[in-house]
Amino acid sequence: MTTFTLTQIATALGATLEGDGDIEVVGAAEPSSAHRDQLALAMDPKYADGLAKGRAEAAILWQGADWRALGLKAAIFVARPRYAMSGLTTLMDPGPEIEAGIHPMAVVHPSAKIGDGAAIGPFVVIGRDVTIGDGARIASHVSVAEGSTLGRNTLLLQGVKVGARVVIGDNFIAQPGCVIGSDGFSFVTPEKSGVENARASLGDQGEAAQQSWTRIHSLGGVSIGNDVEIGANSAIDRGTIRDTTIGNGTKLDNLVHIGHNVQVGDDCLLCGQVGIAGSSRIGNRVVLAGQCGVNDNIFVGDDVIAGGATKIFTNAPAGRVLLGYPAVKMESHIEIQKAMRRLPRFMKSLQQDK
Amino acid sequence: MTTFTLTQIATALGATLEGDGDIEVVGAAEPSSAHRDQLALAMDPKYADGLAKGRAEAAILWQGADWRALGLKAAIFVARPRYAMSGLTTLMDPGPEIEAGIHPMAVVHPSAKIGDGAAIGPFVVIGRDVTIGDGARIASHVSVAEGSTLGRNTLLLQGVKVGARVVIGDNFIAQPGCVIGSDGFSFVTPEKSGVENARASLGDQGEAAQQSWTRIHSLGGVSIGNDVEIGANSAIDRGTIRDTTIGNGTKLDNLVHIGHNVQVGDDCLLCGQVGIAGSSRIGNRVVLAGQCGVNDNIFVGDDVIAGGATKIFTNAPAGRVLLGYPAVKMESHIEIQKAMRRLPRFMKSLQQDK
Amino acid sequence: MTTFTLTQIATALGATLEGDGDIEVVGAAEPSSAHRDQLALAMDPKYADGLAKGRAEAAILWQGADWRALGLKAAIFVARPRYAMSGLTTLMDPGPEIEAGIHPMAVVHPSAKIGDGAAIGPFVVIGRDVTIGDGARIASHVSVAEGSTLGRNTLLLQGVKVGARVVIGDNFIAQPGCVIGSDGFSFVTPEKSGVENARASLGDQGEAAQQSWTRIHSLGGVSIGNDVEIGANSAIDRGTIRDTTIGNGTKLDNLVHIGHNVQVGDDCLLCGQVGIAGSSRIGNRVVLAGQCGVNDNIFVGDDVIAGGATKIFTNAPAGRVLLGYPAVKMESHIEIQKAMRRLPRFMKSLQQDK
Repeated sequence: MTTFTLTQIATALGATLEGDGDIEVVGAAEPSSAHRDQLALAMDPKYADGLAKGRAEAAILWQGADWRALGLKAAIFVARPRYAMSGLTTLMDPGPEIEAGIHPMAVVHPSAKIGDGAAIGPFVVIGRDVTIGDGARIASHVSVAEGSTLGRNTLLLQGVKVGARVVIGDNFIAQPGCVIGSDGFSFVTPEKSGVENARASLGDQGEAAQQSWTRIHSLGGVSIGNDVEIGANSAIDRGTIRDTTIGNGTKLDNLVHIGHNVQVGDDCLLCGQVGIAGSSRIGNRVVLAGQCGVNDNIFVGDDVIAGGATKIFTNAPAGRVLLGYPAVKMESHIEIQKAMRRLPRFMKSLQQDK
Repeated sequence: MTTFTLTQIATALGATLEGDGDIEVVGAAEPSSAHRDQLALAMDPKYADGLAKGRAEAAILWQGADWRALGLKAAIFVARPRYAMSGLTTLMDPGPEIEAGIHPMAVVHPSAKIGDGAAIGPFVVIGRDVTIGDGARIASHVSVAEGSTLGRNTLLLQGVKVGARVVIGDNFIAQPGCVIGSDGFSFVTPEKSGVENARASLGDQGEAAQQSWTRIHSLGGVSIGNDVEIGANSAIDRGTIRDTTIGNGTKLDNLVHIGHNVQVGDDCLLCGQVGIAGSSRIGNRVVLAGQCGVNDNIFVGDDVIAGGATKIFTNAPAGRVLLGYPAVKMESHIEIQKAMRRLPRFMKSLQQDK
Repeated sequence: MTTFTLTQIATALGATLEGDGDIEVVGAAEPSSAHRDQLALAMDPKYADGLAKGRAEAAILWQGADWRALGLKAAIFVARPRYAMSGLTTLMDPGPEIEAGIHPMAVVHPSAKIGDGAAIGPFVVIGRDVTIGDGARIASHVSVAEGSTLGRNTLLLQGVKVGARVVIGDNFIAQPGCVIGSDGFSFVTPEKSGVENARASLGDQGEAAQQSWTRIHSLGGVSIGNDVEIGANSAIDRGTIRDTTIGNGTKLDNLVHIGHNVQVGDDCLLCGQVGIAGSSRIGNRVVLAGQCGVNDNIFVGDDVIAGGATKIFTNAPAGRVLLGYPAVKMESHIEIQKAMRRLPRFMKSLQQDK
């Protein structure tokens, strides 16, 4: 088990250390359940009681805490606790165990170029003309299809499926089971369909003939920037002619659906079960909370933030904070909801007035 | 093909048998499509006509039915038909075929401890120091990562991915493709982000700097009780410091998303596509219908029931029956919806009055 | 790289060609980014500027366009551009590379019958008594469980899992990671549960005892017609007694959930993240936009169209165009939404009148 001295941790966090920097810990824990060899995480005064219950000798504390009075032998003080969690967990994460080298039960096409220091697990399939940068870690059951390119420090976890015509930058992380480069969901009828009529008329599907769907194939690929992470069992479709694109620094949570031709900008967060329908464009630094939906062929501007399960049907201007089905400004949504809750009694009282 | 005598079935169900108990059936069927060697399921008088159309000689019947008049040679009577379905289908389910022993094309780490009577299929990967209890059935393409522990009678179906630091009790069932122990979706900016501002102010994201997301790694694991089932392609994230937990007897349907640090109690049902955001706590016997969403960092009390696609944004007290976006009491929701449907005409009539 | 002459393309599309039919292209592109050897797709006058920027010598053009004036050497004219995309992309799609024959690292049960011309990739598992028609293409990591039958020209992409008792017609396409034939989510308590009470009373769960869930197994299978496509990481459950069914020509997008016993008709489109709860019936030519939900045990009539995230709680008559939570006619939804947005000010003004 790896151990860390407090000095090591404080240095990694750029944080202030007081007390005995030679104390060694093997991990971090909540204050009340911390063992003696664990670092208690007590960045808020509300954790003071917990510290008394637990057995930690060292802690990360809130600014101004009196560590001696709390019975500790050392303490680390950080300016922005949540940000410190990043440094601490990065330091302590053992990471997935994938043996160095290429496992004998992996099938790697002879034309594939695998960078230095790669660790490729059992039952992995790497296709023709694939290029993977230095330092790749590829867990079991992963497939990377013909012609795709992945950058340096790629981490593909168990069962990830990268299709053909996918280009991904450096430091990519793919959680188990996600699919990058499935075919777009694009079908057309020989003559105009009821859906086309209903969309044009906002509700009237007219006299469309009964007809079957013909497939539009996805000739495009998927193009992903640097420092991107994709969640477990998410799916990203290839574009029809051009690529579906995801910008630098964008993170997708689990079970997210990205339709064909979608363009997602830089530094976005798309939380669990978000869905973006085909050909929509998402700006930079957009944050969509869990279960949000974005209609097809619309534009969501830079810095838009949408609360849980917001359904965005029309273009959203930059900087807007949205909520609701259909999405409206968060303040409007809160007002409307308040009014709606009063509505039944309000209508009754008005009718009595008459 | 396995056959069952009516006596066998009645005994397994603790039910009353009338007529010839030696009749053998090979399976169950709806009355109208039942073959001669199938047991018709006709627990309601509405199926009487179906019995006449089908060819079954025996049936499970509603209380008080006259089996002779229905042309049957035998009948089983049960008190609670839906509950009887459990006994019947458990008896008749042949279960997945997984050959006994460890398939030669499975990769099992020499340090792993596999219990007695295990059946492990082809292309399975079992990591370092994994422990799996007696009677495990593990289908093809499953992976169990380093250090994880699974109890007795574990059933992992095709392509299930169990990550590191996962502890699961007895009688666990995992449907194909589900992921247990993916990394949590937890990112932080060096300075306060627009999201933090917007949440604090309910809508105003202030003057946040343009900044990228830094990753908080998941040092915790996932801890799951006994008698739990997880649906196809669902995903459960590891906790940040402590474990994400799921209690005894809880069942998750397909495509369910459980965020990091979430605690789900005992005997809950989380239906298809439900999503629980990070650090929320779900009590015991909570039932969330399909596509429900639970906000992060909130509490849903014991025995809460939420109807389809309910979005729970705030703490829900024990026993509450919820519906809507945002969730309100089901009665209130029905009232509000009625009022809303009348609203356009109501507003028009009031304006004419003026 | 495959090349196509313009004559070839025009013939495939049944379209009119003007200019030099011997020009060869290697692919299609948007006008402004087209290389010299690519066919520009400019089916609308708005693309005229793009043509000037790009380097294409040939294009598919809008009706009546003057291709010479646009600086092209040849042009193809189509009556319904979107439909032409189908023909064009079908012609140009290289398809997934799966080597002919059965890969030595596939595990195919000796009793399985694989049709002529099959291409089966590495780490595929085909179970006992499986039948797969001629011309099958099966990518890596796929499993097909015991007794299942797939028709001609089956395409199963990476990591698809077909369970036992599944019957599928011809020309089936399964995107990576989808699951066909998981167990239904069906649980019952020994005595009446709070959910049963709440559903009966629309909100009151009564005095239900605290009890655990018992499993109803899925003895049925899944039955799928011809020309069906299932999206990435979607999941389709087996029926309890009868099969879950999907009709001819129906297409499912990514992350779609189909519960046990559900019947979906012919030529439906179920878009990304749609969920259909157990035992519901969906008619023919039904189109459900992304994130729609359908309650259990209801009926959605032929030609119903539902907009994004519509939640259908009750039977929907044929031909209805729906929107909203809960679903109402699209026109009603738009009216209600307009009224709701005015509601806060409306209530305030009325109270001032008093």
